[in-house]
Amino acid sequence: MTYKFYEKTISTQSIFKGRIIDLEVQDVELPNGEHSKREIIKHPGAVAVIAVTKDKKILLINQFRKPLEKELVEIPAGKLEPGEDPLECAKRELEEETGYRPKDLKLVTSFYTSPGFANELVYIYFTNEMELGEVNCDEDEFLEVIEVTLDEAEELIEKQVIHDAKTVFAIQYLKLNGG
Amino acid sequence: MTYKFYEKTISTQSIFKGRIIDLEVQDVELPNGEHSKREIIKHPGAVAVIAVTKDKKILLINQFRKPLEKELVEIPAGKLEPGEDPLECAKRELEEETGYRPKDLKLVTSFYTSPGFANELVYIYFTNEMELGEVNCDEDEFLEVIEVTLDEAEELIEKQVIHDAKTVFAIQYLKLNGG
Repeated sequence: MTYKFYEKTISTQSIFKGRIIDLEVQDVELPNGEHSKREIIKHPGAVAVIAVTKDKKILLINQFRKPLEKELVEIPAGKLEPGEDPLECAKRELEEETGYRPKDLKLVTSFYTSPGFANELVYIYFTNEMELGEVNCDEDEFLEVIEVTLDEAEELIEKQVIHDAKTVFAIQYLKLNGG
Repeated sequence: MTYKFYEKTISTQSIFKGRIIDLEVQDVELPNGEHSKREIIKHPGAVAVIAVTKDKKILLINQFRKPLEKELVEIPAGKLEPGEDPLECAKRELEEETGYRPKDLKLVTSFYTSPGFANELVYIYFTNEMELGEVNCDEDEFLEVIEVTLDEAEELIEKQVIHDAKTVFAIQYLKLNGG
């Protein structure tokens, strides 16, 4: 594939390799031949699940988000392990965080969260068929599960308690698809 | 405000200060008293505009996204300058990128794009009242404006030509609100 606005990599400087993200600065050649710098975050990607119970409640997670210095309420989500199948990851994360085991997950969409500086891609799944399993969080995850109606979720958006891209998308998706 | 799952900052290490993002690693104390590391990207925030012309076309931008090594088609958007009013920024970016000057912009919502590792907050505006002004891009922006119908935009999502959170959200928003 050729791109009209292709930026050729002239050199790549690795600044940081972390547990979750890596940071590179790339010197690029612009379409007009001039040079510029690109600051790029490498992220393994993530999954998230729009999960609706038998009594039409949406499963949400309350957790502290250190980059924001506050708690947010979000749909269940987690990072992909290297080489992990997104569908398997979504099943695992949903059960670990909420205790619900999905019988089936449908891929709703996927999107890059911040294409200007990061390659993070999030896969969004949907399920309304689950059975109760066992909650089993990662060691450094502290969270609580909340079950809300669609109306309550919309109020949480108003109050900015729900305030992240994937969850705002999820609530709009449920609204568009009749809960 | 007190948080149930508050993580106290024990120390902060500045790893990188860039043109667009900064990277910090924080040593935090978890709710159970143990310590962990948080990798945190500081970003100035951004704005994006859902802009619909008189003949019901959606204004989109095609540009090369270096973190993805490909072009994406997205709604017009841009970073906030320090202290800049998001509404003023949205007006400026829309006109710079598309040449259309909005008479009025309505705030649709805002969301954090990647609350697990970044503090980037995006404000999403809507307008369907614009007049044609002047295209005037930043020096290192190379882009083209595309005008599509809602049906065409949905096809672009299917083809993953549209593939970022704010634009997938925007198209769903238009679908939910009758174009």
